[in-house]
Amino acid sequence: MHMVKKDVMTDIRAENDHIAAHVNGYLSDKGVFTVNLMGAPGAGKTTTLENLIRRLAVKCYVVEGDIESDIDTERLRGQGVTASQINTFGACHLDAPLLHNAVHAMTFAEPGILFVENVGNLVCPAEFSIGEDIKLLQVSVADGSDKPYKYPLAFEKADAILLSKIDLTPYLNFDEEFFMKGVRHLNPNAPVFKVCGVTGEGYDAAAAWLMDRSGK
Amino acid sequence: MHMVKKDVMTDIRAENDHIAAHVNGYLSDKGVFTVNLMGAPGAGKTTTLENLIRRLAVKCYVVEGDIESDIDTERLRGQGVTASQINTFGACHLDAPLLHNAVHAMTFAEPGILFVENVGNLVCPAEFSIGEDIKLLQVSVADGSDKPYKYPLAFEKADAILLSKIDLTPYLNFDEEFFMKGVRHLNPNAPVFKVCGVTGEGYDAAAAWLMDRSGK
Repeated sequence: MHMVKKDVMTDIRAENDHIAAHVNGYLSDKGVFTVNLMGAPGAGKTTTLENLIRRLAVKCYVVEGDIESDIDTERLRGQGVTASQINTFGACHLDAPLLHNAVHAMTFAEPGILFVENVGNLVCPAEFSIGEDIKLLQVSVADGSDKPYKYPLAFEKADAILLSKIDLTPYLNFDEEFFMKGVRHLNPNAPVFKVCGVTGEGYDAAAAWLMDRSGK
Repeated sequence: MHMVKKDVMTDIRAENDHIAAHVNGYLSDKGVFTVNLMGAPGAGKTTTLENLIRRLAVKCYVVEGDIESDIDTERLRGQGVTASQINTFGACHLDAPLLHNAVHAMTFAEPGILFVENVGNLVCPAEFSIGEDIKLLQVSVADGSDKPYKYPLAFEKADAILLSKIDLTPYLNFDEEFFMKGVRHLNPNAPVFKVCGVTGEGYDAAAAWLMDRSGK
């Protein structure tokens, strides 16, 4: 978070959490389970959506959060996915009011799973609930094994973690033991799925976990 | 930036810019040229510092900005570099007051170059001057070629850009032409140095540019 006076941030958070509860209630009533997908820029979040959606036997909806551009939304639409774009124009994370507006402009004709791809940022998205049921954190082996130590909140709050780009491991000095030690210190229970967006490796297990967790 | 009321943000920025000018004046008086090194988590910023510092024929100082941990500071100190740590404990970027405190606790016995490694974040650090002379942006090929389109401000404000981890290019679908088109749309003139932290490729040119630009 920016270093804004404490009472201002407290007001912002209270208002955000109020709207988040409303968004979650609205989506739950329609039978929609909501996933807040977070991760650093370039972790491969959109590739994860492609891989998960083709493995899920339920209707999937996507909201893409970006500061600018609709590259990822167009990419997903090109594959027949129902996708909607939020542009934050400077803001470094999604918040509940932004998702509220996006969700009320969408049609949820059948129950399913809504994926909200947050702005690429390993810091701020973890601080704000947007009305999701679970938070999914994606981190790439190319980002280095020290990430849990430097960006603890995202790891602490994650319901599941995707460790992506594992096909690059032979070309990197990624220390998986050090990484997992950092993860487990912050988050003893979240499953960690090792995935590769190119080959699809690991996404069967992640999709199965998600189906189970969503109750779909 | 978080979606804080506009007048609050205006106050924060004015106060920040006032302190930034003071920090810059203080360092300039000591003959210290200050570089604000920005980039996403895992772009390889600390590896860049190692590579640049060993090529620069002037005294180098480092301030490491992290939310938590002092992994990078210890790493640089182990190599004999004069390094100091700022922990933001939640804040997603450095600001001028934080650098002000760090700088006044340091001794600048001789002129040289101060590198300030910002918090790993491709969004917020670009919004705040910390009293630097130039902004250096690092982005890795593993992050993907669409980054200028999604995170324009950092590219727009950069005085030079380091495109890192180019040794991974054969294993990725990095589209350099698309990347450079995005960069040049935002920033027609900043030099772009293609670098590899492992082999040191490209850092001679970056260090030469920096010596020239700093007037050292």
